Amino acid sequence: MQYRFSERVAGMQSSVIRDMLKLAQGKDMLSFAGGLPDAKLFPVEAIREAAARALTDRAAEALQYGPTEGDRQLREWLCAQASAAGTGATPEETLLTTGSQQALDLAVRALTEPGDVVLVEDPTYLAALQLFGAYGLTVVPVASDPDGPLPDEVKRLIQAKRPRLLYAVPTFGNPTGRTWSTERRKAIVQLCAAEEIPVLEDDPYGALRFEDGEREPSLFSLAGSCKGSPVVYLGTFSKTIAPGLRTGWAMGDASVIRMMAKAKQASDLHSSIVDQRIIVHLLADFPLADYVRDVAREYGRRMNLMQRELASHRIEGLRWEEPRGGMFLWLTLPDALDAEALLRASLRQGVAFVPGAPFFAGVPERNTARLNFTGMDDERMVKGIGLFAEAINEFLARS
Amino acid sequence: MQYRFSERVAGMQSSVIRDMLKLAQGKDMLSFAGGLPDAKLFPVEAIREAAARALTDRAAEALQYGPTEGDRQLREWLCAQASAAGTGATPEETLLTTGSQQALDLAVRALTEPGDVVLVEDPTYLAALQLFGAYGLTVVPVASDPDGPLPDEVKRLIQAKRPRLLYAVPTFGNPTGRTWSTERRKAIVQLCAAEEIPVLEDDPYGALRFEDGEREPSLFSLAGSCKGSPVVYLGTFSKTIAPGLRTGWAMGDASVIRMMAKAKQASDLHSSIVDQRIIVHLLADFPLADYVRDVAREYGRRMNLMQRELASHRIEGLRWEEPRGGMFLWLTLPDALDAEALLRASLRQGVAFVPGAPFFAGVPERNTARLNFTGMDDERMVKGIGLFAEAINEFLARS
Repeated sequence: MQYRFSERVAGMQSSVIRDMLKLAQGKDMLSFAGGLPDAKLFPVEAIREAAARALTDRAAEALQYGPTEGDRQLREWLCAQASAAGTGATPEETLLTTGSQQALDLAVRALTEPGDVVLVEDPTYLAALQLFGAYGLTVVPVASDPDGPLPDEVKRLIQAKRPRLLYAVPTFGNPTGRTWSTERRKAIVQLCAAEEIPVLEDDPYGALRFEDGEREPSLFSLAGSCKGSPVVYLGTFSKTIAPGLRTGWAMGDASVIRMMAKAKQASDLHSSIVDQRIIVHLLADFPLADYVRDVAREYGRRMNLMQRELASHRIEGLRWEEPRGGMFLWLTLPDALDAEALLRASLRQGVAFVPGAPFFAGVPERNTARLNFTGMDDERMVKGIGLFAEAINEFLARS
Repeated sequence: MQYRFSERVAGMQSSVIRDMLKLAQGKDMLSFAGGLPDAKLFPVEAIREAAARALTDRAAEALQYGPTEGDRQLREWLCAQASAAGTGATPEETLLTTGSQQALDLAVRALTEPGDVVLVEDPTYLAALQLFGAYGLTVVPVASDPDGPLPDEVKRLIQAKRPRLLYAVPTFGNPTGRTWSTERRKAIVQLCAAEEIPVLEDDPYGALRFEDGEREPSLFSLAGSCKGSPVVYLGTFSKTIAPGLRTGWAMGDASVIRMMAKAKQASDLHSSIVDQRIIVHLLADFPLADYVRDVAREYGRRMNLMQRELASHRIEGLRWEEPRGGMFLWLTLPDALDAEALLRASLRQGVAFVPGAPFFAGVPERNTARLNFTGMDDERMVKGIGLFAEAINEFLARS
């Protein structure tokens, strides 16, 4: 028979990142394309022990249907963390989700109608752009500089477009690695509070800061408390423990969380309680903060190696901003170079990366590329960057 | 600030079942309201051992991001089961989901537009009705008898309403416990194939058959193969292993599964791989079929006890159809009795159940009620049915 598919799904662009990942699945492919944490660094033994405890202590409860909002103990732990970072939050202001991707999906479901406008940084997280498209939203990019979106522009667009949401990855953003300045954070939270525009603060990378030192406050903490806050914070354990446990969360005003929970109930009743209980037991005796700091340092070391290797090939016109955390290096290629054409050449050399164009909501800069530095050991990194540089040089020689 | 919520979520009715569950959470409440398997019967030790293996053998893979479609080994196992039951299926025709509720959500997302018509049995699964409402579908009930929907009615409604979907729980349905006859199954699959109307066969209870003997073929198996099938089958391990592992699946034509996977990618990237790997390791050496048969027999024994107790109170006008499997007894109360009013009285006695009205898409029969018999031991069951009968008798005496 012939199937008729909905416009919202049939019209969705397949993710370029995903297609890249598929291309890069061959064993010999040197891939900078993904956004995976390094599985070799996962605290496997501690997770295994936590799982044994989660399936011993109150095991039947972990295996039974549970509340849509998720395990209460884990929500309490998250609230304690949020309070330590400056935001009072209660379990009723917290919703556990299947990764932060689902938190984003539920926030969009609860807070927008088709045809609404959403403001975004440009470039921004590709899967968010795809999601906004699937919900029939009009995406409007905000002009930014390396300190973040320009407050005057945000103000102008709020007045001109009456957006329903502002979506942001303000710390070690994907794809750019950029971090908003504290001043810019304050200005934008104030503005959105005054104009009553909810802000979705997507923060998967904030904990991956390469070096100790002062941390910019989250937009969420600047709002002071969940009650009446314009900010809905989206967090995840995917980059601090392991993505396969699929545990993320949303925090915000209780009425927003309640609406998101209502949407979640219809979507999947609740996320895995087993995984949530594994995390609860892990947090009880595993030194998570120390572990995450060590992982972040290692990622910083790899980022430095990637920079050194890129610099060593002395490619004229190749440049980048150095990120202070996260998983990505955002390259600007020599002017004439189209990154998608480069990718085809590069794949023939056995190297994968993601061209930058799909991350733009506005006019794409076609000579940009995102390179992930967290997923590869030193030897492969050096080899991969060498081949990548070779591909660029060949391209430049031909043009 | 003031938040504006989307119509699709703000307009959703909160689940009566859920409100009942909340009411019934007190320790002393004797609750027939839920739809929970008995946690005391979960194979906890086998699951714990499977978890230990899942987090030892290829642990890093279980903990890393994985394919949207889910763990391949588990999809292969499901395909082998489907083939044994008469339907050729490949992993590309299978999508793992967060319980079968998510499979339903994704199927609706992929196959309908707001304003479309969906045909349903009447009464039917409450959370499906809520989901259809949230997606802006018009729900049209099909006249049925104890053998299932009437094929002539299905035909007439297909021609009159051009529905986009038919949704059904043909085996041990929720809330009625009814099972379609084989003949009726064949007629409706043929009709939907000829008219090119996709059928969502929701089958959470099919494995919970109280006694050995002939099984009605699934609608899915009657279609013979996934390729070109009108049937999308929705399955789950929630009732055969444990709901907390949140693992369900959809099987159907590869193009339908691909569209559902696209919707899933935007929703949550993928479900818990850890849980899927726990199930894979459990299936490797745990005698699941024997275990499920034992659980189903125990549920059958409890259903018989519930029937005997109900009968023992000799309430005139109280009747029910005896189910051959599943988790629910569907009562028709004496004519004048409104089940919602009865519930208020019954809760005061310390007994919870679910009134039948919300399960109806058409005109509700207000003197109906759904009683769950899987979640209670014998002593509490006898006591609970006693108090329930008392509440009815008091009501009848007053009117």
